[in-house]
Amino acid sequence: MKKIVISTGGGDAPGLNAVIYAVVKTSYLHGWEVYGSRFGYRGLLDRNELVRLSPETVQDIVSLGGTIIGTTNKGNPFELPIENLAGEYQIHDVSDRIMKNFLSMGFACHIAVGGDGSLELAHRFAVEKGMPVIGVPKTIDNDLQATQLTFGFDTAVSTATEALDKLHSTAKSHERVMVVEVMGRNSGWIAVNSGVSGGADVILIPEIPFDMTKVCAKISDNELSDKHYAIVVVAEGAHSKDGEVIHKGREEVGRQDVLLGGIGEWVANEIQRLTGKDTRSLVLGHLQRGGSPTTFDRLLALRFGAAAVRMVEAELFDHMVALSGSNIISVPLAEVLKSKKMVPLDSDRVMTAREIGISFGD
Amino acid sequence: MKKIVISTGGGDAPGLNAVIYAVVKTSYLHGWEVYGSRFGYRGLLDRNELVRLSPETVQDIVSLGGTIIGTTNKGNPFELPIENLAGEYQIHDVSDRIMKNFLSMGFACHIAVGGDGSLELAHRFAVEKGMPVIGVPKTIDNDLQATQLTFGFDTAVSTATEALDKLHSTAKSHERVMVVEVMGRNSGWIAVNSGVSGGADVILIPEIPFDMTKVCAKISDNELSDKHYAIVVVAEGAHSKDGEVIHKGREEVGRQDVLLGGIGEWVANEIQRLTGKDTRSLVLGHLQRGGSPTTFDRLLALRFGAAAVRMVEAELFDHMVALSGSNIISVPLAEVLKSKKMVPLDSDRVMTAREIGISFGD
Amino acid sequence: MKKIVISTGGGDAPGLNAVIYAVVKTSYLHGWEVYGSRFGYRGLLDRNELVRLSPETVQDIVSLGGTIIGTTNKGNPFELPIENLAGEYQIHDVSDRIMKNFLSMGFACHIAVGGDGSLELAHRFAVEKGMPVIGVPKTIDNDLQATQLTFGFDTAVSTATEALDKLHSTAKSHERVMVVEVMGRNSGWIAVNSGVSGGADVILIPEIPFDMTKVCAKISDNELSDKHYAIVVVAEGAHSKDGEVIHKGREEVGRQDVLLGGIGEWVANEIQRLTGKDTRSLVLGHLQRGGSPTTFDRLLALRFGAAAVRMVEAELFDHMVALSGSNIISVPLAEVLKSKKMVPLDSDRVMTAREIGISFGD
Amino acid sequence: MKKIVISTGGGDAPGLNAVIYAVVKTSYLHGWEVYGSRFGYRGLLDRNELVRLSPETVQDIVSLGGTIIGTTNKGNPFELPIENLAGEYQIHDVSDRIMKNFLSMGFACHIAVGGDGSLELAHRFAVEKGMPVIGVPKTIDNDLQATQLTFGFDTAVSTATEALDKLHSTAKSHERVMVVEVMGRNSGWIAVNSGVSGGADVILIPEIPFDMTKVCAKISDNELSDKHYAIVVVAEGAHSKDGEVIHKGREEVGRQDVLLGGIGEWVANEIQRLTGKDTRSLVLGHLQRGGSPTTFDRLLALRFGAAAVRMVEAELFDHMVALSGSNIISVPLAEVLKSKKMVPLDSDRVMTAREIGISFGD
Repeated sequence: MKKIVISTGGGDAPGLNAVIYAVVKTSYLHGWEVYGSRFGYRGLLDRNELVRLSPETVQDIVSLGGTIIGTTNKGNPFELPIENLAGEYQIHDVSDRIMKNFLSMGFACHIAVGGDGSLELAHRFAVEKGMPVIGVPKTIDNDLQATQLTFGFDTAVSTATEALDKLHSTAKSHERVMVVEVMGRNSGWIAVNSGVSGGADVILIPEIPFDMTKVCAKISDNELSDKHYAIVVVAEGAHSKDGEVIHKGREEVGRQDVLLGGIGEWVANEIQRLTGKDTRSLVLGHLQRGGSPTTFDRLLALRFGAAAVRMVEAELFDHMVALSGSNIISVPLAEVLKSKKMVPLDSDRVMTAREIGISFGD
Repeated sequence: MKKIVISTGGGDAPGLNAVIYAVVKTSYLHGWEVYGSRFGYRGLLDRNELVRLSPETVQDIVSLGGTIIGTTNKGNPFELPIENLAGEYQIHDVSDRIMKNFLSMGFACHIAVGGDGSLELAHRFAVEKGMPVIGVPKTIDNDLQATQLTFGFDTAVSTATEALDKLHSTAKSHERVMVVEVMGRNSGWIAVNSGVSGGADVILIPEIPFDMTKVCAKISDNELSDKHYAIVVVAEGAHSKDGEVIHKGREEVGRQDVLLGGIGEWVANEIQRLTGKDTRSLVLGHLQRGGSPTTFDRLLALRFGAAAVRMVEAELFDHMVALSGSNIISVPLAEVLKSKKMVPLDSDRVMTAREIGISFGD
Repeated sequence: MKKIVISTGGGDAPGLNAVIYAVVKTSYLHGWEVYGSRFGYRGLLDRNELVRLSPETVQDIVSLGGTIIGTTNKGNPFELPIENLAGEYQIHDVSDRIMKNFLSMGFACHIAVGGDGSLELAHRFAVEKGMPVIGVPKTIDNDLQATQLTFGFDTAVSTATEALDKLHSTAKSHERVMVVEVMGRNSGWIAVNSGVSGGADVILIPEIPFDMTKVCAKISDNELSDKHYAIVVVAEGAHSKDGEVIHKGREEVGRQDVLLGGIGEWVANEIQRLTGKDTRSLVLGHLQRGGSPTTFDRLLALRFGAAAVRMVEAELFDHMVALSGSNIISVPLAEVLKSKKMVPLDSDRVMTAREIGISFGD
Repeated sequence: MKKIVISTGGGDAPGLNAVIYAVVKTSYLHGWEVYGSRFGYRGLLDRNELVRLSPETVQDIVSLGGTIIGTTNKGNPFELPIENLAGEYQIHDVSDRIMKNFLSMGFACHIAVGGDGSLELAHRFAVEKGMPVIGVPKTIDNDLQATQLTFGFDTAVSTATEALDKLHSTAKSHERVMVVEVMGRNSGWIAVNSGVSGGADVILIPEIPFDMTKVCAKISDNELSDKHYAIVVVAEGAHSKDGEVIHKGREEVGRQDVLLGGIGEWVANEIQRLTGKDTRSLVLGHLQRGGSPTTFDRLLALRFGAAAVRMVEAELFDHMVALSGSNIISVPLAEVLKSKKMVPLDSDRVMTAREIGISFGD
C-alpha cells in the first residue's frame, strides 16, 4: 500500500480537478491512499491543510473548473514570506520542514500539477531534498516546450473564440472595430488559435512585433472590400515593432493609463486615432481560466492523471507526463525547464492565418 | 398591397433579427412588401441604404445576433451632424427630407425598433410630421416601464450569469474576491438577475447607493462561515451612499483611472485596500450585447414582430407593442416615454436576494 | 425556532436544487432548521432517508441539474406497493405513519415541490391528516393552470431549440426532412415554443389534431419556394385528426413498433411514404429534463423557494407559490388541481407561429 | 490564374464550411477562382448545380454547421441510379461526362472533401480518368488510419459528452440506469472519448465484444459503493461476445424491435431484465453531426483547407491532407484507403478508462 500526495500550484486551469480525479481513482484500483496538499505546499507545512481524497470525495469533480484542493501563486517554500509578531514579512526557507513532513507521513510520491514555476520547485525538491516527485504540466498559455499540448488551453481558446463570435454581431451592426485582449504574456498561442477560429482580421502576438500602420492598413482594406468592421485580437504580451511608437503612444495618453488599460486598450485608442473608425476594446481576463473544461481538456487531464500514477508504480521520478501525438510519454523535469514554446512563425498555423487574409500587423 | 419600412436604432441587442424576420414573414403572408432602412433613418435619407427584405433574405437570421440592417447611436434626424466641404460638422434638421422620401416611396408604416431614444424620435415623427409609426421596444437594460420585459435582456443576463459561473471556480481555488462590472447605467436589472442566479455575495446597483464598510463586512462574514472567497456584481451606474468616499477614492487613485477603469475597478481596489483580500475585477462590456439570442428572447422578439404587423393592419399607429403577463398588448408611445423602470426595492426579487444572504452594500 | 421538511417528487426538473437552496438559506436567516426527505415521502417513512440541509450542504447546488434529495415517480403513501417476504408487492396506506413521524420530528411545515401528482398528495395530507403543507409547482411541460410559468420549462425549451438548431444544418445539407419528438403528453407548450424559436416548418401538438395531407402539403410548399428541407416538431401526445389514419399507419408498420418508436417515428415514416423525401426522426427524451437550469429557471426557482419560506412564516398552508406577471402570489392547492393549462389556440403565440409560416397540420 | 472545384460528400460534419472558407480565401490570395459542385459530383454533371464561391459568399460560414454546397450519400458517378421515363431507376456510369465537364470548365484541380467513400471515388477519378484530385478527410467517427484526427470528431464527442452531463442529474436523482447510444458503426472512438470525459460507468464498443453478465456486475458494484445509478455508453456497432445472448435477446423482444430500437435499447432492456434497476435509453443520432463546430474543429478544418490549396500549387495530386502531431502532412490517397483505424486496445486511452473504474463489459 502506497500513500501519494498531490498538489496544484500557480494559476487555476480547467482540468485540474480531472487530474485529481484520475489520480485518486487509479490509486484506489491499486489500493493506495491519496492526500491533497491544499494551496500548493501548504498541506505539507500544516497538517490541517492536508486532506484525504477518496473516490467519494472526487465523484462529481471531473467537469468542475478550478481545483478542489486550492492553488496559489505565492507558495515558494524555499523563500516563503511569513508574517512575524510585529506584522512584518520575513523570508524563510521551509523546504526542510516540508521534506520532514513528507517523510513522516510516509508518502511514496508527490504529484505536482503546475506550470513552469511549480515544476521547477518540484524538480528542486527532487534534486536538493531527494523527494520522489512526478510533474503534471498545466499551462493555459500552451507555452511548455516538452508537451505538445496540455489541458486548460483548449478551454481558454474556446472561451476566447466564443467571445469573438459574440462581438462579431455588434461590430458588424455598428460598423465598428472591436479589439479583444486575450491571455499570452510570452506567447501568442491563445491569440492565434482563437483569432483564426473566430474570424479575426488582425492578430497581434509577442512573437511578431507589430506596426500600427500595417494594422490600420488592414482595417482600411476591409473597407475597400465592403466590410466596414474589423475584429482585432491582441495577446497581453504583444508589442510594437518600433519601440518609439509605443513610447510616443504612451506619452500621448499617459503611461499610467496604458498600464491600467493594457495593450488592448492602447491598440484600440491608436486605431481610433489613426483611422477615425469607432473602436471599442475588451479584456477577457479571468474568464479564460474559468468554467467547465471542454471535452478535449477533460480527456487529456484524465489521461495525464492516470499516467502519473503509472509512473509512480514504475518509480519514474523527477519526470513529467507529456503528450506526443496520440501518446502519453514521460520527460525528465530537467529538460522541461530548459525552454519555452513560442508560436513557430513558419508553422502551417501562421501560414493558414495569413493565407485566409489575417494580418499580424507586420 | 402595403409597403412597410423597418429600422433598428441604438445599441444592438440579441433578438433584433428575429423581429425583422417576423415582420417580413408576416407581411409576406398578407402580400405586403418590407424594406429595411439601414443604420436607423439613413435608408430614408439615402435610397442606396434602403434594402428590400424578402423571406429569402431573412431565412436564416432568427438565431443571429446583431441586426442585418445595421444600427447607430448617432442618428437623430432632427439634429444630424453633417460634414461640410471644410471638414467641419454642422447640425442639420433632415426630418422633412425623410418624411418626403417616406411618402414618395409609398410606405404605409414605419416600424421603429429601438430604445427610448429611438422610440422618442419615432413619436416625434408621428406627432410633428404625421408619419404612421409603430414602435418595438428594445433595451438590454430592461428599463422601459411600459413593457414587462423586452428581448435582449434574458440573453444579457444569461451571458453575465455564465461569466459569474466561470469566475466562481477561480475565486474559490485562489480564495479571491472577484468583482464583475455588468451593464446598467440607470437601473440594476442585469446586476440583480445575474447576481442572484450566479451566486453573488454582493450586488451593487444604482437604485441602492452602497457603503464600502457594509460591502467589506459581508466579505468578512464569508470568512467566518469558512467561505474564503466572494463574488461582487456591480452595475455600471452603481454609486456610493457617501459621495465623499467615492471622491476620496478617486483622489487617491487618480480621477483619470476611475474613468478608464470604471466603478468595478474602483470597488475592487477599495475591497483590496480595506480587507487585504486578493481582489480582481473584470468588465463584461460588449459581451452582454452580443451573440445568439436565448430561446426566450427569440420567441419574444418573434411575437413582437408579428404583433407589430397586426398593428399595421389595424392602423394602430403611434403605439408600441409590449408584453403584459402572457399577452402582447399595445401602448401609446406618448406614455412609454414618461418613465423609466427601476428595480423596485420592495419587490420579491430584491427580498429573495437578501433572504438568501446577498448584500446590497446598504 | 422552526423545523421544516422539504421533498421533491415526480420527474426531475432543472431548478429543483435552486428551490432547495433558497429554502435552506432563507430559513437559516430566521434561525430555522431544514430537513430533506429523500425520494419524495421516503424520508418521512424512514429516518435514514431524512437529511439535515445546512447552508454548507447547499453551497454549490443552484446551477446543478436534478435534485440532491432524490425524487421518485412511485411514491404515493396512500397506496404504496411494499414487497412482502414472499417477494410479492402489496398495497399499503402508510399516510398515518408519515403523519406520526412528521409530528414526532416536530416539523412546522412540509414544503412539497412537485407536479400535479405531488401537489395532489400534499393537498390530501393537508385535508385528511392536517399536515401544514406548502406547494411549489414543478412541471417541465408548463401545463399547470395556476401559475403563469414554472421552473424547468425554459431549460427544456432551450434544450429542444438548441437541438433544432443543430439539426437544421444536417437537414439543409442533405435536403432532408427531420422530425423531432419533444416532451408534452397533454399539452404542446414545449413543441410550440421550441418550434417557433427553432425555425420549425411544422409543429404537431395535442391541442390541434393533425392531418398528414396538410403536413405533407407544407413540405411540398417548401420545395416550391426553393427550400428543399423541413423541420417537423412533434409533441409526444400529438395525434391525427382522423383516427383512421393513425390506425392504418399502425397496422401497416406493426403496432408494437409505433409504441416503441413513438409518434415522431410514425410521422417520419408517413412523410417519407407520402412525399418520397428522405426523412429521419429523433426523440429528445430525457435530454430535456437534464442539465444546468437556464438563468431564467434559476431565478424563478430561487424566488419560489424564498416565497415558500415567507408563506411558512405567514402560516399560509395548503397553498402553492405561483408566478403572476412579475409577481409571486399564493394560490389554494384545491384550486391548483382543478384544471390543466393547454396552449390557447387563439393566443398570440399560435397566431405568430401561423403568421411566420408554420403549419400545425390542420 | 487557376480554377478549382470543391465538393463535399457523404454525411455532413461540423467543419465542412470552414474547409470551404479556407479554400476560397487562400485561392483568392493567389487570384484563383473557386467553384462549388453541389451535392457531391452533381455540379460536375449539371452546370446549374455549379456555384461560384467568392470571399463574399463565404464571409460568415466558418462557424456554420453543415455544408453550403450540400452533400449526399448517394452520389457514386460510376454507378449512378437515374430515373427513366417509366419511373424506373437504372444504373449509369457518368464518370466520363463528369471528366469532360471538368476539362471543359478548365478546372486545375478537384478538392474532394469526404469520408472513405468519397476519397475512394476521388482516387478512382485520379487513376482511371486522370483527374487532378486532392482529398480532405472528413469522418465524424475518427476511423481513418491516415490522419491522427479530423474535423467533426471533436464536435461530435463534445455533443455526446454534454448529453451525458445532462443525463447524470436525472440518473442520480431517480437512481436509474441511463443507456446512451452514440455513433460508431465500426469503431468506438466517440463512445470511448465521450464516455471517459462524461463519467460513464460502462462503455461498449465494436472493438471489445461485451458480456451482459459483466455489464450487470459493474452496475451491481456501483450499488455496493453506494452509487445507485449508472451511465452506459454504447456505440452503434457494439455487439455481444456471445452471439447466442444477442440472438436470444432478439428472439425475446422480437427482431423487428431491435432493428428499430437499436443496440442501445436492447442493452437497456437486458439491464432492466437482469438487474431489476429502472433503466432508460436514448439515441443521440443526428445531434452528433450537427451544430457549430468546436474551436478545435474550426481550426483543424481551416488548416486542412489552406493546406489543400498549397498542395494544388505544388501539384501534389492524388494525395490527401492529414494531421500528424502538430503538423499538416500529405498522404497518397492509395494508402489512405488501405485500412480503418480502430481504438487500440492497449492505448493509454483504454487503460485510463479501465484505471478510473470504467468497464468495457469484458
